[in-house]
Amino acid sequence: MAMRRAGMSAIRALCSSPNSTRHVHSTAGSKKIVGVFYKANEYAELNPNFVGTVERGLGIRDWLESQGHQYIVTDDKEGPDCELEKHLSDLHVLITTPFHPAYVTAERIKKAKNLQLLLTAGIGSDHIDLKAAAEAGLTVAEVTGSNVVSVAEDELMRILILVRNFLPGYHQVINGEWNVAGIAHRAYDLEGKTVGTVGAGRIGRLLLQRLKPFNCHLLYHDRIKIDPQLENETGAKFEEDLDAMLPKCDIIVLNMPLTEKTRGMLDKERISKLKKGVLIVNNARGALVDTQAVADACASGHIGGYSGDVWFPQPAPKDHPWRYMPNQAMTPHISGTTIDAQLRYAAGTKDMLDRYFKGEEFPLQNYIVKEGVLAPQYR
Amino acid sequence: MAMRRAGMSAIRALCSSPNSTRHVHSTAGSKKIVGVFYKANEYAELNPNFVGTVERGLGIRDWLESQGHQYIVTDDKEGPDCELEKHLSDLHVLITTPFHPAYVTAERIKKAKNLQLLLTAGIGSDHIDLKAAAEAGLTVAEVTGSNVVSVAEDELMRILILVRNFLPGYHQVINGEWNVAGIAHRAYDLEGKTVGTVGAGRIGRLLLQRLKPFNCHLLYHDRIKIDPQLENETGAKFEEDLDAMLPKCDIIVLNMPLTEKTRGMLDKERISKLKKGVLIVNNARGALVDTQAVADACASGHIGGYSGDVWFPQPAPKDHPWRYMPNQAMTPHISGTTIDAQLRYAAGTKDMLDRYFKGEEFPLQNYIVKEGVLAPQYR
Repeated sequence: MAMRRAGMSAIRALCSSPNSTRHVHSTAGSKKIVGVFYKANEYAELNPNFVGTVERGLGIRDWLESQGHQYIVTDDKEGPDCELEKHLSDLHVLITTPFHPAYVTAERIKKAKNLQLLLTAGIGSDHIDLKAAAEAGLTVAEVTGSNVVSVAEDELMRILILVRNFLPGYHQVINGEWNVAGIAHRAYDLEGKTVGTVGAGRIGRLLLQRLKPFNCHLLYHDRIKIDPQLENETGAKFEEDLDAMLPKCDIIVLNMPLTEKTRGMLDKERISKLKKGVLIVNNARGALVDTQAVADACASGHIGGYSGDVWFPQPAPKDHPWRYMPNQAMTPHISGTTIDAQLRYAAGTKDMLDRYFKGEEFPLQNYIVKEGVLAPQYR
Repeated sequence: MAMRRAGMSAIRALCSSPNSTRHVHSTAGSKKIVGVFYKANEYAELNPNFVGTVERGLGIRDWLESQGHQYIVTDDKEGPDCELEKHLSDLHVLITTPFHPAYVTAERIKKAKNLQLLLTAGIGSDHIDLKAAAEAGLTVAEVTGSNVVSVAEDELMRILILVRNFLPGYHQVINGEWNVAGIAHRAYDLEGKTVGTVGAGRIGRLLLQRLKPFNCHLLYHDRIKIDPQLENETGAKFEEDLDAMLPKCDIIVLNMPLTEKTRGMLDKERISKLKKGVLIVNNARGALVDTQAVADACASGHIGGYSGDVWFPQPAPKDHPWRYMPNQAMTPHISGTTIDAQLRYAAGTKDMLDRYFKGEEFPLQNYIVKEGVLAPQYR
């Protein structure tokens, strides 16, 4: 199927071959590129750098159209009659984001007969059925590194908001109240506490560096140890056994990708073994945890606070239990889409499109699926 | 007056003599000690370490009473009929805190004929009329260092809350909404921004250390330069001229004591010269800034966000404009009274009382007024 429209590819699968390969090397002629972003609406005019939106479309329209390509942007991504569905049959490239995820299912991939390339403007491509994408021989790539600093900063903010019990104080202010005891009886310093990160990839490592001056006990669990120099610099201790690490932590931060292996990893049983009053920060993915188990543990006080910006599904429905559980400090999915991050992932997406048109390789770390072959950490 | 009841003092005024001296060296016999704290009420039983409250009274009652001293604690501190007023005529030591400040006016000092020692459980003694205390020959001391880490951590939290525009996202969550654009159009990374601290004493220096890994441009203004090693370690640049520094800053943090010189230092004129959209964090003292000028600048957008835990007066009245201004991230006065801080300032207060009973010197850095002589930074 894919062979009908594929030219020579400069990029070859390195490992096992997929069932079929849709070569990522752009063939001659104009391409149809579709981008799915969140709408800026009334906020569009407030900031000239608000590029990650439908209205600005990553700021690449003029560049794409000057080269003869067609560029469609929309936020309409759900259901059989949405704008995205209309373009599936003839698009070549689909750009999506984790913040307003267009779920790229096996069914949609099957419909998208011309599709060659799936680009994530940002980091985290779990809204894409990677197995189906690999089987169809597609390439999936993201702008690795584009918002890791943004997310790590946000995690440290959330740790502090929980440890220091910020929100009850803020609520007192807006409600015309003043009751220091109502805040202070469960406000602590971060100093001296034990903080464990599950995952010490790009974001986890940046978090450890930012935590260093707070004089905490830092632990990390990952498949492999971090660079000895960084371990020495941050004082973070490697914990090979996740279930040995978790009960030691006053604060747990999730920093791993969502895969079939990690889905639901923080479930009722694991939560029951955590310290009473443990604080949890999850800016990774909502589906890493059992939604109801988290809500129940917040209600019982076993979890002393939960903060994050990721939910499943997104947007979170009005009746999502995390909106109503006590001691939550949640936001919509926002940490990786600061204005600074948008400028970086817009630039990174443009760079990959440029390479695609020219038949050049992407930066190696950007590949999630490379011509049908899944990157090792997703297998 | 004071001479009637003063024995030999081990502590002598070092500089100019006050009009009269009430020697801080405890004379023989039992002392009457009054502590003014906030009430824990229903929160008292929730945490055994909640010591900075009326209910726990710094955890020193048994120790004081076993030595024959009288110990009164109250939160009732306002007006002519309050509990504090009843004890003014015969107390020897008054313990107060900045979180629920008993305003120790010249009039109250005059009434307190037996008063020798004013102890602040925490840091910041501006609720005491220091001039009147000095003229009466009193000693005023605080537990220097007891909550500097607590406050510095809290400042960094507030910087992140403002830079990353946390609260609008949180409001969306609790209101059943989801609108990433409404948050993202003014959410930024802290990385790369210019942060200036006005004051680089104990708290300011700890903040600079914690800011270091965020890769900001760090500036500081103070009367004197910080240690060259710390300057080198943090990369912070000294700015001799406050008015030259302020307009360079994306984020300004106030970290100086409230004195007659610093009162109202951030006024309408100074605010008008700041960058449009500047973010301000003030955990120092509310009266350092012009309340209405801050509220007006938040309303106009000239100040992009204001966060702090200090107000004037405290408790803040229900109609305080900062409760209602846009882009505020305020709390009651809380940052220095975490559970960890309470344990430290309770221990520090007990240590000074012990030294007072024994006629020993306090740690030098604790003195605000030493037998009638004001510490240099308060002159």
